[in-house]
Amino acid sequence: MQDMVNFLNKGRKNKFSLNLDHLSVEKKKHLGRMLDKLWEGNTDKFLFLPIDHGIEHGPSDFLDCPFALDPYHALELALQGSFSGIAVHIGYATKYWQNPKYKKDVPLLLKLNGKTNIPSSAEAFSPLTSTVSDAVKLGADAVGYTLYVGSPSQDRDIEQLRRVRTESEDAGLPLVVWAYPRGKFIDELGGKNNFAAVAYAARLADELGADLVKINEPELPDLEGQVYPEGASLVSIISFWDLMQSKD
Amino acid sequence: MQDMVNFLNKGRKNKFSLNLDHLSVEKKKHLGRMLDKLWEGNTDKFLFLPIDHGIEHGPSDFLDCPFALDPYHALELALQGSFSGIAVHIGYATKYWQNPKYKKDVPLLLKLNGKTNIPSSAEAFSPLTSTVSDAVKLGADAVGYTLYVGSPSQDRDIEQLRRVRTESEDAGLPLVVWAYPRGKFIDELGGKNNFAAVAYAARLADELGADLVKINEPELPDLEGQVYPEGASLVSIISFWDLMQSKD
Amino acid sequence: MQDMVNFLNKGRKNKFSLNLDHLSVEKKKHLGRMLDKLWEGNTDKFLFLPIDHGIEHGPSDFLDCPFALDPYHALELALQGSFSGIAVHIGYATKYWQNPKYKKDVPLLLKLNGKTNIPSSAEAFSPLTSTVSDAVKLGADAVGYTLYVGSPSQDRDIEQLRRVRTESEDAGLPLVVWAYPRGKFIDELGGKNNFAAVAYAARLADELGADLVKINEPELPDLEGQVYPEGASLVSIISFWDLMQSKD
Amino acid sequence: MQDMVNFLNKGRKNKFSLNLDHLSVEKKKHLGRMLDKLWEGNTDKFLFLPIDHGIEHGPSDFLDCPFALDPYHALELALQGSFSGIAVHIGYATKYWQNPKYKKDVPLLLKLNGKTNIPSSAEAFSPLTSTVSDAVKLGADAVGYTLYVGSPSQDRDIEQLRRVRTESEDAGLPLVVWAYPRGKFIDELGGKNNFAAVAYAARLADELGADLVKINEPELPDLEGQVYPEGASLVSIISFWDLMQSKD
Amino acid sequence: MQDMVNFLNKGRKNKFSLNLDHLSVEKKKHLGRMLDKLWEGNTDKFLFLPIDHGIEHGPSDFLDCPFALDPYHALELALQGSFSGIAVHIGYATKYWQNPKYKKDVPLLLKLNGKTNIPSSAEAFSPLTSTVSDAVKLGADAVGYTLYVGSPSQDRDIEQLRRVRTESEDAGLPLVVWAYPRGKFIDELGGKNNFAAVAYAARLADELGADLVKINEPELPDLEGQVYPEGASLVSIISFWDLMQSKD
Repeated sequence: MQDMVNFLNKGRKNKFSLNLDHLSVEKKKHLGRMLDKLWEGNTDKFLFLPIDHGIEHGPSDFLDCPFALDPYHALELALQGSFSGIAVHIGYATKYWQNPKYKKDVPLLLKLNGKTNIPSSAEAFSPLTSTVSDAVKLGADAVGYTLYVGSPSQDRDIEQLRRVRTESEDAGLPLVVWAYPRGKFIDELGGKNNFAAVAYAARLADELGADLVKINEPELPDLEGQVYPEGASLVSIISFWDLMQSKD
Repeated sequence: MQDMVNFLNKGRKNKFSLNLDHLSVEKKKHLGRMLDKLWEGNTDKFLFLPIDHGIEHGPSDFLDCPFALDPYHALELALQGSFSGIAVHIGYATKYWQNPKYKKDVPLLLKLNGKTNIPSSAEAFSPLTSTVSDAVKLGADAVGYTLYVGSPSQDRDIEQLRRVRTESEDAGLPLVVWAYPRGKFIDELGGKNNFAAVAYAARLADELGADLVKINEPELPDLEGQVYPEGASLVSIISFWDLMQSKD
Repeated sequence: MQDMVNFLNKGRKNKFSLNLDHLSVEKKKHLGRMLDKLWEGNTDKFLFLPIDHGIEHGPSDFLDCPFALDPYHALELALQGSFSGIAVHIGYATKYWQNPKYKKDVPLLLKLNGKTNIPSSAEAFSPLTSTVSDAVKLGADAVGYTLYVGSPSQDRDIEQLRRVRTESEDAGLPLVVWAYPRGKFIDELGGKNNFAAVAYAARLADELGADLVKINEPELPDLEGQVYPEGASLVSIISFWDLMQSKD
Repeated sequence: MQDMVNFLNKGRKNKFSLNLDHLSVEKKKHLGRMLDKLWEGNTDKFLFLPIDHGIEHGPSDFLDCPFALDPYHALELALQGSFSGIAVHIGYATKYWQNPKYKKDVPLLLKLNGKTNIPSSAEAFSPLTSTVSDAVKLGADAVGYTLYVGSPSQDRDIEQLRRVRTESEDAGLPLVVWAYPRGKFIDELGGKNNFAAVAYAARLADELGADLVKINEPELPDLEGQVYPEGASLVSIISFWDLMQSKD
Repeated sequence: MQDMVNFLNKGRKNKFSLNLDHLSVEKKKHLGRMLDKLWEGNTDKFLFLPIDHGIEHGPSDFLDCPFALDPYHALELALQGSFSGIAVHIGYATKYWQNPKYKKDVPLLLKLNGKTNIPSSAEAFSPLTSTVSDAVKLGADAVGYTLYVGSPSQDRDIEQLRRVRTESEDAGLPLVVWAYPRGKFIDELGGKNNFAAVAYAARLADELGADLVKINEPELPDLEGQVYPEGASLVSIISFWDLMQSKD
């Protein structure tokens, strides 16, 4: 347990010490399983491998690296790279991750909501593609939720996240929130990577009950850390596509 | 079972091998029953006969071939042609397919949602005309759902599909998704038969948990298959109306 | 039972024979009771007396025939005219039809939805004023639903009808659908009495599971019947107000 | 019981006789208790004292008669004036009416919905501020509902009233409907006191199942009564504010 | 109990005497616990310390006083200052307040709804970030709700508050309502601190069943108190940020 605290504190500017006593036994167990994977790999970052590009951008992302079309390629990467988990939607979790080879050794973070990039993101909102109940049936170790901070759709986004949080607490599954500034007002305020916007997004997710928060890297130079959310660890989730590009 | 895998792999560009272990026993049983029909007929395609034109276009489709107005004509065609199933809405399933002659030998794919072509399809969405519960009561072998990919109504479409998927899993009924690019943004992007749009639609349906995906034939010439969804079979569903025309 | 089939076939262009085997025992019982009324009166049409003008047009319809304000006048007419039923909303069913004199001998078709004519009908939709559960409590022999075919509100209309259909099936009550082309798109297409629009409306109601369909008389001259819905009887429901006028 | 019928017939133009047999035993009991209050006071009108100005207009109504700010003043008036009931919202019912002095002798009509006058009433709609369940817990003798007839929000207003009606029937509580023409279309048609609009409002409430209907006094001179709703008593509910003014 | 009445009457213009008999035993117990805190501190005001700036304004509020980023700083302040409670959202209640040091001695007012300041407040509405059920699980002594009086979103705000009120009554938790004039119509009427608007807000919250009401200090000079809501105590809740500023 102290190991877990120490590890998570690495990602924080250490003005304030982290205390995980509030986490339920089940959540600690699932978080621990995901951390164990990392330690196996001698890495010192919390790394999830998200494969949700097929929903968010469509399959054209994969045109230049056709091997990426094989879902087993990503699963193999997660397995051999000792990632702390793979973040996929219900269809891929059901069809590929359930292969015993991966189910046993790659922790599953079931991504619960998503959207295409076809309609304008002026009122961005990601509806649920699956539920915490699906995550429990599959044997996931965590659930993921994308919150579009600042979107005109914030009312139903916050409502939807509240229900997900309640269900994930009841199920003992850690809740990872992708907290992204988005929508027409964000564009007016300097864009989705604006420092203040990213800080606001992180804080909001933290206040709404996220256990872990994924943010975009903010643009401003004076990144001294003092306005980062004090209650949530900053978790770097490496993008599968970025990974593809860098390995080209 | 291996027969089923082999058959479904025929429809795929065979870079990746298909594995159906994730399917429940009940889903395999229903899929098997529909495949048996095809093998009886010595066909090598998964063929459903959809009779939903009355909802989607109105009865004017039938003005030139009045015999098509007789619902028993289509049922007879499905029976004698050894189709893998007939895809109809609740009214026709209840009134005609339930005739013991057809109920016994024509697998029923209950189409769960639909819409008229009268309001503009700029924000296309097909509400539920029946439910998985109706399909179970009737003794269907599959359920069908139309997803309008890219429509501004995607939020409720994805939500509605999620509920249908959950219910069809609980009922052990295979879920066939008609994945159609549609709506004002698709028109801007090159139309509903645009290659990238069709590929996106197939991928989205696959990620959302479809067991089988029906797509429009895309327009682009370089149809090399490498961006086709790797997780779902490409199923050709012949249109009843096309069939009528070609038999004229 | 064969009598019932013969009677209903009278209203159809007899290219296709009607089969009522799909109806549940309870639905047959209620339909039979309503047909018995007609045979008592030696009439050969399925006649319902609808008294819903107070909701649809307001009481000004009655200004010129003040006796029509007495709800017992209409009930007396239904009784003495051997109508197959009276179609009213919950308030009048509760307050007047429940008088034992009428409850015993006038079958009740509880009209489940309605609207005023005050807001524009550009997006016409009739919300539920009562439910199938109310119909069961009152002892009705059928329920009625108005579907505005082609309206921009079709999504919730189809959803609402689906729930009514399911409940009426569970309750064993026949479902009569008033299928009316309506809304701004219909106006563009030639109006609510346009032949193609009326045919589409009838077909849609039939596909959605109506047991009986009420349509407007279409305008086109070539009314040869071959595009009429083959699954539903064409039922003429005489309008109370028309009746008033013709008796003036 | 005959007394009750005679009393209610006083408020009707007596072309048609009123029959209350359809009312449940519980509803008769509650109506009887409210009538008893009137007879104690030798009045011959059904009088409710509504104190909902704080919600509908804000407290500025009371600026000129500060004693009206004391909720006990109104309760005392209802008690000493032998009103048939006091119509208030949940907050005042809970905090003041529950004082045993008033709870025992002033029948409570719990007003279930309301709105402020701040947003435009172009699409007027009053959401529920409490439920029939609250009325039962408090020991009310009736519930009240404001229906804005002709408003573009009529769909959800009719739906909401339907649920209130069903619940009030189950609870055995009489349902009083304030039937007010309102919204942008009513303004176009001659305003909220227009004779035809008021008659339509009364008729609609009657058809939707109201036990008593409160209307605005219509403007037209030829108020001969023949178009008044034949199924509902016309109940005069004196406005608290009018009363204040007339006592000034 | 009489102590509680006397204390609350201090905040009222004493034309009318306050009676708390309507409060349930559980609500009295929780209110008493919060008052005890104040008396310990020899203060004579009902003081809550709200730390919800991270949601309402984002973390930029804290840039000038970085110590405020430490959630334990605020908790320590609440503890040592003998505040009647700390008002925070679910994330901070779970992660920090649950530390036994504070949980034991700082009463928790769980703030149930909130919003960011990014989308325009023209149609201001605060969705639920947690529920009364969460408050019960945590061991809170009260729940808080922000009502935006006059907003075009008033329909769902009033509906949402009604459900919160019902649940808080069932749970025996006092309901504190932040009643704030807000939205485009309020701007037209003189702004959120306009005297009449503030008075209306207080009255509305009182009528809807609030146990305590928090208002903005109104602008008008003739604050003689006679239009203040007679049913609710005026509770001053000092703002954490104001406090920070004044201590600078």
